[in-house]
Amino acid sequence: MPPLYGGIEAGGTKFVCAVGHGPDALLDEVRIPTTTPEETLARVVAFFRPYGAELCAVGIASFGPVDVRPGSPTYGFITTTPKPGWAHTPIVHIVAEALNVPVGFDTDVNGAALGEHLWGAGRGLDAFLYLTVGTGIGGGGLVNGKRLHGLLHPEMGHMRLPHDRERDPFPGLCPFHGDCLEGLASGPAIEARWGRPPHTLPPDHPAWALEAEYLGIALANLTFVFSPQRLVVGGGVMQPPHLWPQVRAAFVRALGNYVDLPALGQHVEDYLVPPHLGPRAGVLGAIALAVEAARGDTSTA
Amino acid sequence: MPPLYGGIEAGGTKFVCAVGHGPDALLDEVRIPTTTPEETLARVVAFFRPYGAELCAVGIASFGPVDVRPGSPTYGFITTTPKPGWAHTPIVHIVAEALNVPVGFDTDVNGAALGEHLWGAGRGLDAFLYLTVGTGIGGGGLVNGKRLHGLLHPEMGHMRLPHDRERDPFPGLCPFHGDCLEGLASGPAIEARWGRPPHTLPPDHPAWALEAEYLGIALANLTFVFSPQRLVVGGGVMQPPHLWPQVRAAFVRALGNYVDLPALGQHVEDYLVPPHLGPRAGVLGAIALAVEAARGDTSTA
Repeated sequence: MPPLYGGIEAGGTKFVCAVGHGPDALLDEVRIPTTTPEETLARVVAFFRPYGAELCAVGIASFGPVDVRPGSPTYGFITTTPKPGWAHTPIVHIVAEALNVPVGFDTDVNGAALGEHLWGAGRGLDAFLYLTVGTGIGGGGLVNGKRLHGLLHPEMGHMRLPHDRERDPFPGLCPFHGDCLEGLASGPAIEARWGRPPHTLPPDHPAWALEAEYLGIALANLTFVFSPQRLVVGGGVMQPPHLWPQVRAAFVRALGNYVDLPALGQHVEDYLVPPHLGPRAGVLGAIALAVEAARGDTSTA
Repeated sequence: MPPLYGGIEAGGTKFVCAVGHGPDALLDEVRIPTTTPEETLARVVAFFRPYGAELCAVGIASFGPVDVRPGSPTYGFITTTPKPGWAHTPIVHIVAEALNVPVGFDTDVNGAALGEHLWGAGRGLDAFLYLTVGTGIGGGGLVNGKRLHGLLHPEMGHMRLPHDRERDPFPGLCPFHGDCLEGLASGPAIEARWGRPPHTLPPDHPAWALEAEYLGIALANLTFVFSPQRLVVGGGVMQPPHLWPQVRAAFVRALGNYVDLPALGQHVEDYLVPPHLGPRAGVLGAIALAVEAARGDTSTA
């Protein structure tokens, strides 16, 4: 029997839990609404409990902020989240004690990046980034073959960008920075600017050209600072197929021919790509964290 | 006898070569003007030749662009530089053949980052960045304990930033991007904007508040995307002591209290620091590359 892993995609509105051997062999999956930590985690544990000793590890890919610094007194905690009841929740300890298995832990987007690394668009690449553009904008990835950590964890959505207020007078809606990337280009920012949710805007609506411009510049910035081998972009806002050529064109424009590589020009459609694991990237990212935890590496790899 | 290393800081105007055992034990140093590759590299080789078999490795920290991808057909080359005569120079091969030693190779700023990692401000940290602000602006660093590479190498100076043209009508002077970070905040940009070189501008000149603002935002962006454990900032523009408190204040402002850590607030003077190796950071970075090459790692570590 191949080893059995558990994955917990811990989100602010729901927890998705799955057990399986890998992306093509999921045995069961459940969605649990995010209520109180006690209630939610009791249901999570109850889902995994029947697998007992068969389960060799569990991974948790969580909303944040989280403490992923091995050795920190609050390692494995959801820390200062504004989500009521969830601040300072030792989620790793609770799950590990209840199920008595190794637990892998990271941000949702670093989990998704690891999933893409094992099974998707980041296979064989030791330097790639994953950006998700949805209710929020977040980024993670692998650098030198390991997940990107550091002082805390990346908060790529809060990068500041050029913002031409004549073209776009919308002030941005980030409560911390106003017009950072997330403040200008997340789903809620699009909705606040145009008065309609993104999925109701037709392909020829000017919202899309503006969105592509911000994302193109942000992705070019990530290429300038990281030099990743590939950029994977997921999230709800990226679903409309018509957005992709616009984002790729804006990205190439923002690079300004500075780096003369085919990946950053004529072959950009192989460089700037959607996640291969699609809508299951989240829970498969959690399972990827379990795979690493089972290998004995719950920290940085 | 401790092992003897050679370092070559390959710059566009001069090559600085040194031999020694480490930062506190340099035996000899020479400055060679950058003329043709043939003449310059012949003088470089002649400097090291007398040390013969004592020399256990040489490191080259070079101006770019360079090819640092192990296994690439042009690994070890200075590639598409506009510097006359230097495009497509196989600098690593020339030095390695002439001296018959392992040669370590990277960008000047990744070399400097490695030097700071071994002996300076990055000691014991496996995630820190080094930004140099001078004639150009460049960045490098260590992530997950290894030097930052990827598709090519980082070009952090070309990050795009907010540019308020009412406050600062200067269009920027980057030939590729106009008002990218380097276009707005390098030494030549300051000189072009104000009509005087930076070192002649008094501390109360408005140039400095503007410079601090751009650097603060750029450094905050780097913190958001990398979450480094420390930011080391060197280069000629950073020499005036009065600039440091302004840059640190602008950095904390740009973070907008989003990440609640002492390093990013009250203890920012320990987070955002000058290189400890000072003006010798360049050649010591080259020696650090030699130390790694002697360990048998000429590629990514």
